[in-house]
Amino acid sequence: MDKYQQYFTADKFAMSNGIELTECHPGFAKAQVKIEKHHLNGAGVVHGGLLFTLADFCFAAAVNSYGFVTLSINANMSYFAKSTKGVLTAEAKEIARSNKICTCDINVYDEENQLLANFKGTAYITHKEIDFLCH
Amino acid sequence: MDKYQQYFTADKFAMSNGIELTECHPGFAKAQVKIEKHHLNGAGVVHGGLLFTLADFCFAAAVNSYGFVTLSINANMSYFAKSTKGVLTAEAKEIARSNKICTCDINVYDEENQLLANFKGTAYITHKEIDFLCH
Amino acid sequence: MDKYQQYFTADKFAMSNGIELTECHPGFAKAQVKIEKHHLNGAGVVHGGLLFTLADFCFAAAVNSYGFVTLSINANMSYFAKSTKGVLTAEAKEIARSNKICTCDINVYDEENQLLANFKGTAYITHKEIDFLCH
Amino acid sequence: MDKYQQYFTADKFAMSNGIELTECHPGFAKAQVKIEKHHLNGAGVVHGGLLFTLADFCFAAAVNSYGFVTLSINANMSYFAKSTKGVLTAEAKEIARSNKICTCDINVYDEENQLLANFKGTAYITHKEIDFLCH
Repeated sequence: MDKYQQYFTADKFAMSNGIELTECHPGFAKAQVKIEKHHLNGAGVVHGGLLFTLADFCFAAAVNSYGFVTLSINANMSYFAKSTKGVLTAEAKEIARSNKICTCDINVYDEENQLLANFKGTAYITHKEIDFLCH
Repeated sequence: MDKYQQYFTADKFAMSNGIELTECHPGFAKAQVKIEKHHLNGAGVVHGGLLFTLADFCFAAAVNSYGFVTLSINANMSYFAKSTKGVLTAEAKEIARSNKICTCDINVYDEENQLLANFKGTAYITHKEIDFLCH
Repeated sequence: MDKYQQYFTADKFAMSNGIELTECHPGFAKAQVKIEKHHLNGAGVVHGGLLFTLADFCFAAAVNSYGFVTLSINANMSYFAKSTKGVLTAEAKEIARSNKICTCDINVYDEENQLLANFKGTAYITHKEIDFLCH
Repeated sequence: MDKYQQYFTADKFAMSNGIELTECHPGFAKAQVKIEKHHLNGAGVVHGGLLFTLADFCFAAAVNSYGFVTLSINANMSYFAKSTKGVLTAEAKEIARSNKICTCDINVYDEENQLLANFKGTAYITHKEIDFLCH
């Protein structure tokens, strides 16, 4: 976990928004964020952009932790419920992986374990090694 | 434009990330962000979450500016090119609108007018009036 | 099951392509198709349009079986593996449902239980009753 | 056009559903289908699966006509209006193309030029040559 945390804390956008990686191994990751006032949109609820960023960060951790640079191609985000406070958790699971393309399903939950959003991400595997090794 | 800007500056997440609305009328909006270091990911390029948030904010402005509370249901994001600096612009155009559902196509460009990402957003129109009027 | 099968056999496009509903209750459905030569594309593998139609039909069965006319808004389809023969099975599970919008996750498998495709569908619930009742 | 038509008439699924290619060059294609009774769903309107298949076939023609085998990864389909008759037309335009990945925007119209559906497709370019040459 140390190598990962070091690697992913280089993600300034996620860090500056308070997102942190709590679990990570090839094909799986968990990330969390504690809701603050600057995460809200004009309607006073958590911004879709924050939910997306949390899910996207979790996705990147799951697919890059094989040790190869893996680039996001497409993401499909669905919103199910609103949230205004507490700690949100994203959980990424890889559902398919070929030599070149991988796909993850990421769910975002609130503290009551209510499903807030689902993110399906598709990425391209470059086979260029990342600085850390994951095995 | 004054009413809109006032309304959308209530979006703390967009504001705290430096995103601003530059144009807005029913079915159309433009938004911009100047890239700063805290917008970058671990690979040193603009975070997908920032591109998404810029596009999503622009989408919300275009569909809410009819004057009715309009809630995002689904967003499909595709990434085409990387960016590391300069001012990014998102442009939202509504491509379909029924009584209940509307859909926008949002393109995100860099300063050289290179297409960085495309976002297709679907929202539900509540017919509850927003505090400002748009006509 | 009888009422459903009767209702869904009115789907001439699915029927003419050999698709049949094998299980169905509110929020869940299974459908199958036996691959024939006319299901193949120019490369000799099962056409994406058939995989989509199988998943879409299964989606419609799961969300309409609450007894209310429910209209598809958006579908996101990902392809993972090719198929050329045998019986394909789609399984739809509802992952979220509000008063107006519902979302299903549909997986398509081949006979060896290999995941061929994933379909995420979003639909609008009209609250107009369908001719059959499902409870 | 002759080489293309020959190539794409090998698509048995599209052909058996009455779909034909009317225009095609690298990054662009048009396809049509005349609505018949077997294209309708249980509600008596054109099946989403047919609209998808029409768009998907058009997408494949646009991206394969560079002369390299190009495989669909992901498709995002949005439905805007119903149709029951006449000739439907899909038009595919490539909006981004890198060395490995390409993306098209496909619109489906009815005879009155009403936008029925939008399809955004992402494909992987294999750089394996197709039997015909397109330049």
